[in-house]
Amino acid sequence: MNNQQIVLASRPQGEATAANFRFVEAPLPALADGQVLVRHHYLSLDPYMRGRMNDSKSYAAPQPLGEVMIGGTVGEVVDSRHPGYAAGDAVVGMGGWQLYSVVDGGAAGMLRKVDTRLPLSAYLGAVGMPGVTAWYGLVRIIAPKPGQTVVVSAASGAVGSVVGQLAKARGCRVVGYAGGAAKCAYVVDELGFDACIDYREHADARSLARALRDAAPDGVDGCFENVGGAVMDATMLRMNDFGRISLCGMIAGYDGQPIPMTWPQLILQSRLTVQGFIVSEHMGDWPEALRELAAGVAGGTIKYRESIADGLAAAPEAFLGMLKGRNFGKQLVKLV
Amino acid sequence: MNNQQIVLASRPQGEATAANFRFVEAPLPALADGQVLVRHHYLSLDPYMRGRMNDSKSYAAPQPLGEVMIGGTVGEVVDSRHPGYAAGDAVVGMGGWQLYSVVDGGAAGMLRKVDTRLPLSAYLGAVGMPGVTAWYGLVRIIAPKPGQTVVVSAASGAVGSVVGQLAKARGCRVVGYAGGAAKCAYVVDELGFDACIDYREHADARSLARALRDAAPDGVDGCFENVGGAVMDATMLRMNDFGRISLCGMIAGYDGQPIPMTWPQLILQSRLTVQGFIVSEHMGDWPEALRELAAGVAGGTIKYRESIADGLAAAPEAFLGMLKGRNFGKQLVKLV
Repeated sequence: MNNQQIVLASRPQGEATAANFRFVEAPLPALADGQVLVRHHYLSLDPYMRGRMNDSKSYAAPQPLGEVMIGGTVGEVVDSRHPGYAAGDAVVGMGGWQLYSVVDGGAAGMLRKVDTRLPLSAYLGAVGMPGVTAWYGLVRIIAPKPGQTVVVSAASGAVGSVVGQLAKARGCRVVGYAGGAAKCAYVVDELGFDACIDYREHADARSLARALRDAAPDGVDGCFENVGGAVMDATMLRMNDFGRISLCGMIAGYDGQPIPMTWPQLILQSRLTVQGFIVSEHMGDWPEALRELAAGVAGGTIKYRESIADGLAAAPEAFLGMLKGRNFGKQLVKLV
Repeated sequence: MNNQQIVLASRPQGEATAANFRFVEAPLPALADGQVLVRHHYLSLDPYMRGRMNDSKSYAAPQPLGEVMIGGTVGEVVDSRHPGYAAGDAVVGMGGWQLYSVVDGGAAGMLRKVDTRLPLSAYLGAVGMPGVTAWYGLVRIIAPKPGQTVVVSAASGAVGSVVGQLAKARGCRVVGYAGGAAKCAYVVDELGFDACIDYREHADARSLARALRDAAPDGVDGCFENVGGAVMDATMLRMNDFGRISLCGMIAGYDGQPIPMTWPQLILQSRLTVQGFIVSEHMGDWPEALRELAAGVAGGTIKYRESIADGLAAAPEAFLGMLKGRNFGKQLVKLV
């Protein structure tokens, strides 16, 4: 049986392109003792992958050239030589950009069985890594009190949409940034944010900050930052004393261009705390987060939207489009 | 009896100048019930005062035009109509740029009696606001472990010198930045830092970061930042994962010019925490800090150096020189 895979062919010079990826076929090896064969139903595409394509310091080691692109996957066990798994089990893991993965069933954190009462794809979004990312940055770093104002960029995306809904559930005023009228309408009308600023309508941070002054008249107590650059500068201009900035992503700078923070003196003047984090380093918080997220999705209080590309070969274009904001909600690739 | 005072005459346009200050004489009012008359022995000059001279948002309300410049003072009670104070008591307070102040003896935090076994001037430096600033940023924000590396800018100054000595006492490797060979030699030879980088010998942040790589071969776990700009950029380039930056001052930007943070993505990549603070908002920590600082000065484990200007009229030039780094250690004005 053959596997299909997408490997990193070359590192981007500036903007990533389809030529950085290569589609390959490879035979599936026979299972060794303790191994599990998983057929992927969905592949998750996430902004962090762009950082891994560079050969510079990022959260983690760079993605090796010539190897299967890393990525979260959800699917079913089709063969198992590990006593903990049986054919038919639904599992989430880090299977990468390929149709099948062979996983060491005993390795901690590599594979997790999931409840099929929720849609499988949710485990790559609101009830998966993006959802826990939202939960950690909001609950552990921003730690908002009822009545405070939380601002989140990329508000219609997999992480931002959950941040806002969790903050609303905690009694906060929530303002998002998103690109375009359709996304902004969705953020307010469907997700229940109090306001959403279309960043495409503003030329610079000062203009964004004026819009934010109207949307957040009491100032900003917590910022969940996914983007960086002018959007982050604008939020900083409106932060209240002792505000917290949870720095989750700087998608504005993934292509290597400089993205300075224009007014770092605001950290001092407003006595802010700015904290970067990566959710995989806080595994102890995952169970509590996943309980709240799964209950929210099951109960309908956490809504989400998906952009689904069809077939592994479509993954590179879907990924590149996501980096430009062409997706609407969580970007997935359907593999079966 | 006449008082002599220096008031803020005008707000700086860019760099502050002597013309922004005005020397005035005014009669001392008779004491009302509950008031205390203090004769100042020393006036403290501190970088934060430059921020107060601007009409923009800073830690606190701007210094009002036409009023006596704020500032810490130490002196003696010469008359008292408050039962808690008697003539001859040594007291530290916020008397401002003047020879005498009339203080409400019952107002919390306005006046504090001090032990005359230490030199009075120490209460404006290592055993005063600068020392507690050092203590808070190091102990409460950086919270270094033995063996970790702490970097501090303006290392020969009133705050930086204490940061380094407190960090050495906690088993850290300590690296300073200072301006000029004489200050760097003092920081290493007298204060006991492991290394000191003369920032004047480097053209930019990259060059500073190379020097820091040699001085801090295991990277930097804690940064106590007094300066901002290229010095802070350089330290950020060498921060280890989960490093803490205690943001105490950005003297590089007090004249209003932009001082962007060049690589904010390092906060994310290295999962840093950057926290701004102002020590007067953490009064609960002062007693513990002052106990350690007073014991260190009394025991000789905390050394300090002073630049003493003579007479109130010399205060403006001494202050302007301090902003350019012309002082060497804590800048004071001797008033008796």
